Amino acid sequence: MIKRVTLSIDAMGGDNAPDMVVEGIGIALKSLSDVDFLLFGNEDILVPLVNKNSFIKNACVVRHAEDVVSNHDKAGAALRSGRKSSMRLAINAVSNGEAAGIVSAGNTGALMAMAKFVLKTLPGIDRPAIASYFPTERGQSIMLDLGANVICDAENLVQFAVMGEVFARNVLGLAQPTVGLLNVGSEQLKGHESVQLAFNALQSIDLPMRFHGFIEGDDIAKGTVDVIVTDGFTGNIALKTAEGTAKMFSTFLKECLLSSLTSKLGALFAKPALTKFRRRLDPRSYNGAMFLGLNGICVKSHGGTDGLGFANALEVAVELIRDGLNDVIKEDLAHLDDAPNENKGKP
Amino acid sequence: MIKRVTLSIDAMGGDNAPDMVVEGIGIALKSLSDVDFLLFGNEDILVPLVNKNSFIKNACVVRHAEDVVSNHDKAGAALRSGRKSSMRLAINAVSNGEAAGIVSAGNTGALMAMAKFVLKTLPGIDRPAIASYFPTERGQSIMLDLGANVICDAENLVQFAVMGEVFARNVLGLAQPTVGLLNVGSEQLKGHESVQLAFNALQSIDLPMRFHGFIEGDDIAKGTVDVIVTDGFTGNIALKTAEGTAKMFSTFLKECLLSSLTSKLGALFAKPALTKFRRRLDPRSYNGAMFLGLNGICVKSHGGTDGLGFANALEVAVELIRDGLNDVIKEDLAHLDDAPNENKGKP
Repeated sequence: MIKRVTLSIDAMGGDNAPDMVVEGIGIALKSLSDVDFLLFGNEDILVPLVNKNSFIKNACVVRHAEDVVSNHDKAGAALRSGRKSSMRLAINAVSNGEAAGIVSAGNTGALMAMAKFVLKTLPGIDRPAIASYFPTERGQSIMLDLGANVICDAENLVQFAVMGEVFARNVLGLAQPTVGLLNVGSEQLKGHESVQLAFNALQSIDLPMRFHGFIEGDDIAKGTVDVIVTDGFTGNIALKTAEGTAKMFSTFLKECLLSSLTSKLGALFAKPALTKFRRRLDPRSYNGAMFLGLNGICVKSHGGTDGLGFANALEVAVELIRDGLNDVIKEDLAHLDDAPNENKGKP
Repeated sequence: MIKRVTLSIDAMGGDNAPDMVVEGIGIALKSLSDVDFLLFGNEDILVPLVNKNSFIKNACVVRHAEDVVSNHDKAGAALRSGRKSSMRLAINAVSNGEAAGIVSAGNTGALMAMAKFVLKTLPGIDRPAIASYFPTERGQSIMLDLGANVICDAENLVQFAVMGEVFARNVLGLAQPTVGLLNVGSEQLKGHESVQLAFNALQSIDLPMRFHGFIEGDDIAKGTVDVIVTDGFTGNIALKTAEGTAKMFSTFLKECLLSSLTSKLGALFAKPALTKFRRRLDPRSYNGAMFLGLNGICVKSHGGTDGLGFANALEVAVELIRDGLNDVIKEDLAHLDDAPNENKGKP
């Protein structure tokens, strides 16, 4: 029998919250029947929303939070003055053991700062990283860091590689995931000092990691490796560049297909195929950025998502909890620290 | 009357050279009737190729070069031992005044190192940058640096902004181009020290530059600004990520359209529209990366391109020469140096 899981939810985070949050719970409950939700937010708004649907009502407990972290709040300010916010109370529920993980569509910087402060990092991890799925020609890969750390040294990159590999093995279910380090060329002497030192450390790391070496930007969508490791500056820009390119592509395609009567007719015939195509790259299916390296599961939904996207973020959180991701990361990092190998990830 | 222009060509650079080089000249001659080509390479191979077509033959002079820089050669080694290579001799022809610009599809690092050594940088420019067109929802933008400088300080970024703005005004013909600095967020406090210092310097720069501020990865394809400024590490990865995403999108679209009989029928009706769509994003139309900041026009074609792509790179070079790009960059930089303003691009 599958053990019941409780998820803590920042019900006020996100552009369309709390409506899309409750809608997302309704959608997720179709596949996540053994999950309970602990919702934090304004109870005057939340309770009537939840009570509209008895299916949702039965799976949810609402806790009042008088404050909300806005998207304009700076991370530090939110940390200091947001102690009664829905985001902070939802994180607290993980630290005090009431919930196994937290999901929020709110302010990313504030969520990372609060989660780091309340949950702390895993032993052996200096800085948590933001990771996300990325659709590729071969299926999907995972990429980290996507913006938590604007500057990363080689040691950070090595820790990201370890976390990403454990993730791919346990959550994606790959027996031997490959790991690549994002760079401006695949030759060993390319790039700056951090990537070169990380390359050396990963080549001799004492873990059963299949380190592919350097990869380039076009290798991301090709699916050359399962885990793409990079600093938060580059990762954030690469992710958003890909999103922007995909959107431009869709816009152009639509314009061309609507440009004449025969092309419209063609689009009509091809409609099921075009729908399948759109679904394959639907950003909502890839919603749910994971904060890896924290002493607790924390998933960040895109702020502008709808119920379907939020439901996907909920499923990601439950998957991370069920797969016991953090326990395996801890084991692997402990193994690295014990190893007699001198190149134990510290270049 | 338009003045005749001589272009110097590294005829041996590129995966499909010299065939695609000569083919590209043939294609370019249809629109560039007032251009002469000085081809450097193995004359035993080149002369018969050029002589096949009298139209091409009349526009070309072949000069023998006994050596070729390969894609595996390191930049430093190519610079030291490639003095008789087709690449080096083609660059020399610009420095000794025989040609107004050089085009090569060879090794990027070697081309940059040799061009910098032979042509030198423009006064006021510490490091040249690689710039390229980028298709956007609004038309096209220019992005730099795309890989010449893996680490850039604020001063480099400011110089790239000046060069990019001059380019957009003179080559793209925009009256008041906008300039944006690529970052992980649009808020003023985001990012690392270099982008923050460059932001401050560009806000108070003594040039009629429309500085938009920070932009994010998805702003590139949106066309939020005309000139995208970034360091060579991020720029190279963003460019290749966009290329990879566009390719994945095309592959998925093709697969979906071929997945059933009705969708194939639909694709048939929509064929002219789909062809228009493909052309709009054809990477060959955006071929020709410009090395800005050198005392001479130098254009790098994609190594894997075909004749059509190489022809586009030739057209880019002629455009830069005709627009007198370097003279305007020099004027603007001289103006910055004379300016009494303390924030003259040196944060």
